[in-house]
Amino acid sequence: MSGPAQPPAVGPSRAAEGAEARRARAAWSHLAEPTDAAAHLLCRTVGHVAALELVRDGRPRGLLAALAGVELPTEVADAASGGGHVPSAGARRVETALARWRARLAALDLDAELDRTARRGIRLLIPGDPEWPDALDDLGDTIPHGLWAAGPRSLAALVAPGRAVALVGSRACTPYGEDMACSLGGALADRGVCVVSGGAYGIDAAAHRGALSAPDGGGTLAVLAGGLDALYPRGNTRLLEAVRERHLLVSEAPCGTTPTRWRFLARNRLIAALTGATVVVEASWRSGALSTARHADDLSRPVGAVPGPVTSAASAGCHRLIRDRGAVLVTEAADVLELVHGGPPAADPGAARQDELDLLTPLDRRVLDGIPPRSWASLASLALECALAPEAVAAAVARLELLGLARTSGERVQRARRP
Amino acid sequence: MSGPAQPPAVGPSRAAEGAEARRARAAWSHLAEPTDAAAHLLCRTVGHVAALELVRDGRPRGLLAALAGVELPTEVADAASGGGHVPSAGARRVETALARWRARLAALDLDAELDRTARRGIRLLIPGDPEWPDALDDLGDTIPHGLWAAGPRSLAALVAPGRAVALVGSRACTPYGEDMACSLGGALADRGVCVVSGGAYGIDAAAHRGALSAPDGGGTLAVLAGGLDALYPRGNTRLLEAVRERHLLVSEAPCGTTPTRWRFLARNRLIAALTGATVVVEASWRSGALSTARHADDLSRPVGAVPGPVTSAASAGCHRLIRDRGAVLVTEAADVLELVHGGPPAADPGAARQDELDLLTPLDRRVLDGIPPRSWASLASLALECALAPEAVAAAVARLELLGLARTSGERVQRARRP
Repeated sequence: MSGPAQPPAVGPSRAAEGAEARRARAAWSHLAEPTDAAAHLLCRTVGHVAALELVRDGRPRGLLAALAGVELPTEVADAASGGGHVPSAGARRVETALARWRARLAALDLDAELDRTARRGIRLLIPGDPEWPDALDDLGDTIPHGLWAAGPRSLAALVAPGRAVALVGSRACTPYGEDMACSLGGALADRGVCVVSGGAYGIDAAAHRGALSAPDGGGTLAVLAGGLDALYPRGNTRLLEAVRERHLLVSEAPCGTTPTRWRFLARNRLIAALTGATVVVEASWRSGALSTARHADDLSRPVGAVPGPVTSAASAGCHRLIRDRGAVLVTEAADVLELVHGGPPAADPGAARQDELDLLTPLDRRVLDGIPPRSWASLASLALECALAPEAVAAAVARLELLGLARTSGERVQRARRP
Repeated sequence: MSGPAQPPAVGPSRAAEGAEARRARAAWSHLAEPTDAAAHLLCRTVGHVAALELVRDGRPRGLLAALAGVELPTEVADAASGGGHVPSAGARRVETALARWRARLAALDLDAELDRTARRGIRLLIPGDPEWPDALDDLGDTIPHGLWAAGPRSLAALVAPGRAVALVGSRACTPYGEDMACSLGGALADRGVCVVSGGAYGIDAAAHRGALSAPDGGGTLAVLAGGLDALYPRGNTRLLEAVRERHLLVSEAPCGTTPTRWRFLARNRLIAALTGATVVVEASWRSGALSTARHADDLSRPVGAVPGPVTSAASAGCHRLIRDRGAVLVTEAADVLELVHGGPPAADPGAARQDELDLLTPLDRRVLDGIPPRSWASLASLALECALAPEAVAAAVARLELLGLARTSGERVQRARRP
């Protein structure tokens, strides 16, 4: 039995509601770190606007009520049972979260921030925007509150399914790794692939540079850990400016945020989620790039790794990925495309490297091998050597002579000099 | 219904029978190439002594009768139906085989050969000998007629189960490949492993050299494609003499046999069969070493490969094995031992590379990361930056100071210089 039809709720118009949600998401990107599970949980449960209201309201009871009945991750667990007089561990955690959000909210002048940000040409992307890529939804509980973006390209277009690949690796890379990142980046961009990386020194920078070198290529996207107002690291400013000018920079962090280790680690999940495959070009045993590979793995995105000399510590992480974590060994752009498209294996390059030796029958090949390298042999001795009938040997020798591989003189045969 | 019991056949004594079989196997090693499927089939069906008698007898009918009822491989098929007047293709093949064996038999002075061979210190190993390794039985239809051996070590002892590893690779190797083969060979021999290879230039030689450098190690075995009377290649004579003097050389080929391409390829099956695992150290896209890996695969022996720079053509075959053929990526001797023993994975070397940073809790680590690299921060700003409660930050800073990672001054904190 249904009750009488309700009139549509009277409220802000759809556009205004959108604007309010955008403002709330912008605020949350200031209040909560990317790793703040409680913030993600609250916003996903009640929506960003209502969540922000609850913070403004400031009463833990409101938060606890909003989260009642929600399946809580460990770190916010017990909160639902914390409504009594003696605060439980969970309730205390909710209070702590509220306190930290309120501390940041008190320091936030959102209008001024949004104004400064807009003047820098930085826009905020939120779910539902045409530029918001569906791929980010795979992050589930850690979908970013929003992404700050700068640059002329559309994020959704750059990372359309099957179009984007992450090339990541160590900052402390070798010239070999740098060359590989740059040439892979260039070759992939040439084939219309958007090369996604983290804008760091070393492998990241080389991958971006390679992609930038392909003038009408797939482009390149740098996903930064800090705010887009101060490009980091400093030494890559010009590179990142070029990416911003021609393609796109994005960050989960609002302007004014300095990059820190946990923000780098959280950022890696975005790189993994935005791309169809993650390829680690060079990584030491404990490189942060391995965390991107792990995120890709968690998201069921394929992982590739470029091998290097086993004597190079800078490749130890790649070897570890291939050996112990099922990463696919990658040697060229075709291997990467195969990873992304899961399509048929790249054509066997060996098949192209064919010479007349490949045209020989096994028998002809055997007779050729039986001819001594630098002297004449009689057909009879050759037959004995090859354990073949004399007629078979004679026929093979005739074919070899035709192919220019042997010379005969009466009953004797000699190898022809290869041109 | 069985007929009356037959008296035991009157014949040579057991010892004499053994001697006769040994002579027959020696003869067959002269008559038939390692790849001669018809010879293997005949000898396995009627035994080497009777098979040799049939060749001496010279009548194809005798051979066909001996092979009647045997399941024939393609190349000898139809032979059983070839008893009629019009010879079938199979019967013709048997005739061809008989003709080639007879041609070699006519040229063979077995007594003189055996005499010369014995005077060179070369012995013949046949199935049933204490030195014959069971592992060779896995070759089934291509078990060698015998193996010629020279050197003080027992073949069966050298390649006892779990004790032998094949290290193979390209002749045209790089200094990197040579270093790897030598150091792996040395490290394996040091751990009691016998390093088996083919005595060729490049990777093979480096593997033998590495193993020889371990004075009380597992030793090294060279499996050659030609006769043991003329060590090949010439440039490795001194190396192979050292192997012969201290360990062992073996070959399927009798004295006087020059190595040819098909003999090298047939030899590779022996290297794969004699060892618990085959590791390809460096191999180009079409290296013969890949055939050893394929034989190992066919015999269900594990295959490993050492990666190298993808810019090096000399490693392309190794990368192909890892990428497309399920070879295990090998970076050190421990990986190889794991391959052979199928045991627990080698200890994680990363676990040993631990410093005080690993001792930090995630929270301490977060606070440390939040301290700016080169300036003082107030505890309050640090709490805001890290999105943590001020008390939590103060406690973390105290622990960091204790570990020598931070310095405080009143309410301010700074990173400590790392020693």
